[in-house]
Amino acid sequence: MRTVFWEQGEVVVIDQRRLPQTLEYKRCNDYRQVAVAIKDMLVRGAPAIGATAAYGMALAAKQYCGLDKRGFLLKMEEASKTLAATRPTAVNLFWALKEIERVIELNSDKEPVEIYRMVLDTAEKIAGDDIETNRKIGEYGSRLVPPGANILTHCNTGSLATVEFGTALGVIRAAHRQGKNVHVFVDETRPRLQGARLTAWELVQDNIPATLIPDSASGMLMKDGRVDLVLVGADRIALNGDTANKIGTYNVAVIARENHVPFYVVAPTTTIDFDLENGDQIIIEERDRREVTHIDDMAVAPEGVGVFNPAFDVTPEKYITAIITEMGIIERPFGENLRRLKQKIKGEG
Amino acid sequence: MRTVFWEQGEVVVIDQRRLPQTLEYKRCNDYRQVAVAIKDMLVRGAPAIGATAAYGMALAAKQYCGLDKRGFLLKMEEASKTLAATRPTAVNLFWALKEIERVIELNSDKEPVEIYRMVLDTAEKIAGDDIETNRKIGEYGSRLVPPGANILTHCNTGSLATVEFGTALGVIRAAHRQGKNVHVFVDETRPRLQGARLTAWELVQDNIPATLIPDSASGMLMKDGRVDLVLVGADRIALNGDTANKIGTYNVAVIARENHVPFYVVAPTTTIDFDLENGDQIIIEERDRREVTHIDDMAVAPEGVGVFNPAFDVTPEKYITAIITEMGIIERPFGENLRRLKQKIKGEG
Repeated sequence: MRTVFWEQGEVVVIDQRRLPQTLEYKRCNDYRQVAVAIKDMLVRGAPAIGATAAYGMALAAKQYCGLDKRGFLLKMEEASKTLAATRPTAVNLFWALKEIERVIELNSDKEPVEIYRMVLDTAEKIAGDDIETNRKIGEYGSRLVPPGANILTHCNTGSLATVEFGTALGVIRAAHRQGKNVHVFVDETRPRLQGARLTAWELVQDNIPATLIPDSASGMLMKDGRVDLVLVGADRIALNGDTANKIGTYNVAVIARENHVPFYVVAPTTTIDFDLENGDQIIIEERDRREVTHIDDMAVAPEGVGVFNPAFDVTPEKYITAIITEMGIIERPFGENLRRLKQKIKGEG
Repeated sequence: MRTVFWEQGEVVVIDQRRLPQTLEYKRCNDYRQVAVAIKDMLVRGAPAIGATAAYGMALAAKQYCGLDKRGFLLKMEEASKTLAATRPTAVNLFWALKEIERVIELNSDKEPVEIYRMVLDTAEKIAGDDIETNRKIGEYGSRLVPPGANILTHCNTGSLATVEFGTALGVIRAAHRQGKNVHVFVDETRPRLQGARLTAWELVQDNIPATLIPDSASGMLMKDGRVDLVLVGADRIALNGDTANKIGTYNVAVIARENHVPFYVVAPTTTIDFDLENGDQIIIEERDRREVTHIDDMAVAPEGVGVFNPAFDVTPEKYITAIITEMGIIERPFGENLRRLKQKIKGEG
């Protein structure tokens, strides 16, 4: 199941807000609709956001390739800014937009219609690479999953958070396909319930045994020895290993360490922000109070109360056992090993 | 605002499931309705459950005091069993029923109608004592609250969890009335959202500055140094200090200790189970899967997924800074100090 794709000149995304009730697709024929789809979380999950933004740029290129060169380039710049302003934390968004900008720059001597083709090819490559990346992550990560393991996961890191297959949930999927007989505890993940709505749905679809829990029950399970390992995704990883991910990830990490449960971050290398020394500077998006005070149209809190609704938190590197990427498992010390990876990637690039 | 009271021969309780939208009272003229009110959580919170059960016994005594002695006593035994079977974790329920049983036993030579009077008096005394107890708890506890403190709390421990005033929220109330300028972070407390629905509502009513958060955001706040102390209630405290309380309390306790934030348990001495060596034997109630899979009538999880929905967890004593009671603040080591308290109470009794 693909979360985002290009079809007949349009960007198509699953409207994840309708799940688990309805599998509904939203077709965008204007890049601004793509921006809204990211901002309003029809699409979410760091890798999916990156690929969707790239397709958004392809759509902008299609819309404006009839203009003269100067007009076209100005419109593309505008589109990139609009897409970048949707969500601040996931670094894959900025990475994907930079990839597209690089292609436009390198080919700025060509005609707009040619550039459009190249931008679309790049978007397709970003999406295709993401699927390939997730398969590799699953291969590496599943080596860390013992047979019969009880795995705890937070938020959604599955097909729906990527282009297809998933990161942390991709590892679970791979382990399951290897016949490892895993069972998954799924944090429901308030306030938007991506665990209940999306992860549980993906696991049921794949017949992977799963138990949904309120986020608050993760502690009791770990204390009682019922969790063998934790697998979570990431929205941004700093050079020292500090990791921004869905709010509550830090809570899980602290409790995992307290109970000697291995805690793994699972992400493509595009989620690593090689320009960031540590997690202190990561911008944490705060979302609308209504996500906490209302459920659909029903108020569950009194008027007049303040609300703090951060979308992410930062887990300091010391709580993380290892980082699973498509280029292998990054062990501690992360500072040293991520610097080495940076050289390798920048050298290759 | 009283949560439960006796009026014109009936037991009246606030139907807390309707809050914060509507303040609605439920009148019970049969003790079985009182049992249902506890089981279905119209009334919840350990001290409130205790007082409500006592009033339930008074109602049974009123219903059956027209019978002969033997018939009356059999009916009272039946009523006590029915009320005891409503919820397994809060020890105040069993404590209150024992108090009533003792009164019936001591007066078994009297006429049913006289016993009814005595049972009602005992229920009124249990309720009145609870209010007085909470005031004293507030007095002791507020000494631990520095001016301008940011306090984190979990679930509801206010007037609605007691007969009036509250335990942990009573301490907050007392500190606020002393002009201490406190601010409260309120865990929404999934799955039933007692923090959002009840605690936030009580705080808004009292004009105490409050910020509602998803349970998962408590970690980030403590890590960022934005919480000065944690105050929570209790459903049962073992002799070594291990404390059963709303699911997620353990998570908060572990993260508080990790960040050097004092973590206080606030409860009347009736919440201490002096017969229990430690928390391992506390029975943890599991509630319906629908509390997690549905919000009102809307499914937020797919069919076919498993659910684990424990109402409480046990926080090992090592995470608790002190226990605040109406008889003073119990410091560590709890084993020694709770044994001394037991002698004092049993000696007085």
